[in-house]
Amino acid sequence: MAFLLLLLFLAATTVTSHSHASELSFLHQIHLLRPQSGAAGDHLPGITCLSWRLGVETNNIVGWITVPGECEGYVGHYMLGQQYREDSKAVTDEAFLYAASLKLAGDGNDIWIFDIDETTLSNLPYYASHGFGAQPFNATLFNKWVLEGKAPALPESLKLYRKLRSLGIKIVFITGRTEDQRTVTANNLKKAGYSSWLKLILKSSSYSGKTAVFYKSSERAKLEKNGYRIIGNIGDQWSDLLGTNTGNRTFKLPDPMYYIS
Amino acid sequence: MAFLLLLLFLAATTVTSHSHASELSFLHQIHLLRPQSGAAGDHLPGITCLSWRLGVETNNIVGWITVPGECEGYVGHYMLGQQYREDSKAVTDEAFLYAASLKLAGDGNDIWIFDIDETTLSNLPYYASHGFGAQPFNATLFNKWVLEGKAPALPESLKLYRKLRSLGIKIVFITGRTEDQRTVTANNLKKAGYSSWLKLILKSSSYSGKTAVFYKSSERAKLEKNGYRIIGNIGDQWSDLLGTNTGNRTFKLPDPMYYIS
Repeated sequence: MAFLLLLLFLAATTVTSHSHASELSFLHQIHLLRPQSGAAGDHLPGITCLSWRLGVETNNIVGWITVPGECEGYVGHYMLGQQYREDSKAVTDEAFLYAASLKLAGDGNDIWIFDIDETTLSNLPYYASHGFGAQPFNATLFNKWVLEGKAPALPESLKLYRKLRSLGIKIVFITGRTEDQRTVTANNLKKAGYSSWLKLILKSSSYSGKTAVFYKSSERAKLEKNGYRIIGNIGDQWSDLLGTNTGNRTFKLPDPMYYIS
Repeated sequence: MAFLLLLLFLAATTVTSHSHASELSFLHQIHLLRPQSGAAGDHLPGITCLSWRLGVETNNIVGWITVPGECEGYVGHYMLGQQYREDSKAVTDEAFLYAASLKLAGDGNDIWIFDIDETTLSNLPYYASHGFGAQPFNATLFNKWVLEGKAPALPESLKLYRKLRSLGIKIVFITGRTEDQRTVTANNLKKAGYSSWLKLILKSSSYSGKTAVFYKSSERAKLEKNGYRIIGNIGDQWSDLLGTNTGNRTFKLPDPMYYIS
């Protein structure tokens, strides 16, 4: 098992970095993650997985249901490998540089908005055993995972959270998780290292059937109406960052596993 | 020279694709493009060029002046290699799929907006001999290149242009090039294969000192006021796609060489 994990890590490294390619290139043929899932996913003929991922991250490819079947191995390697970490760090480093450059009022009304799933907390342990987004989303199984309350922090986001708080910025979480998951979510956040926050906003039943863009925009509008200044906003989905009242600057973390409109 | 170009192509291929990594991995150490430019560019310690490029393309890293010095080779290989082509094709394919899915009114008021530089026309021949964006922008030399009127089409955009026109969609160019470059730009467009268009909008002196976002939003607002429907909008800069009256859907082409706000 340890050897399998090592192989997985090495395979991920060869795909996502070229610094050790000569030693590790034999691993390019190995797609350990692919056979686990069976046939699933959208088919996009003629588009490489690298281009597909860039298309997704730049909001060119929208409304997709599953990761293209032929990209399951690629996405798995990416998510488990060093490049996902480095890509995340490039975003959170930039976010902190921006925040540190601001002259803050210091009146406690400067807030930073964090999405939760794949931003604050990582569901990679779940997705690693469910095809990395190449299998259709299973709400029952995913909610079961959420209720276990053991999602780890996205390490780069936890660092950003701590550094933003040290600047005196208040943290507001706005998540697509529903109100009935408040306790487990709060406990999970604390367990993962997010010790406190100004507000934890979950999706109330009044937003049932509404898009994430509408729900999140509405909640951000309420915050601004109450005198808060949204100086920054970070999420893994464009629906965290588009719409109205988006904040003074937005930051898009990588997520090639699923799309939420 | 032919051998050098072949080497360049191979080197670019190894960086941007892993399909032939085992045969070509010895080329990873070669950065043929780097020595041409001397020291230049921003320094971003600890961020890989891959993460930097993703950060740029997702609008996380903004306001940068030059490509980080250590990424000149990477950007050069990317731009000259197959991945830039494939990434561009993924965008234009998605754009056409979207356009073809629409029920158009057929009244001649459905328009698609194209930016020009690095969208409709490619200045890669210029940038290839000026450090791929790692050297500070030189307006004198760049304008001299523009006035030569020999920029080639971005092949994927030319195909999209033709396919959109076959659907009955009218083409409007909005470019940051200035009004005094109208004749050379029109001639260059025709020479590159863009045979006709509804409007070619260049930046008039009244926008002098204004951002691209302001100028382009204002011109798009005028178009909508005149009854046109902007069904799509494609550009290589986020400033082509943000602001107001952005169009029903926007498409971001890759450009890791420069940033325009």
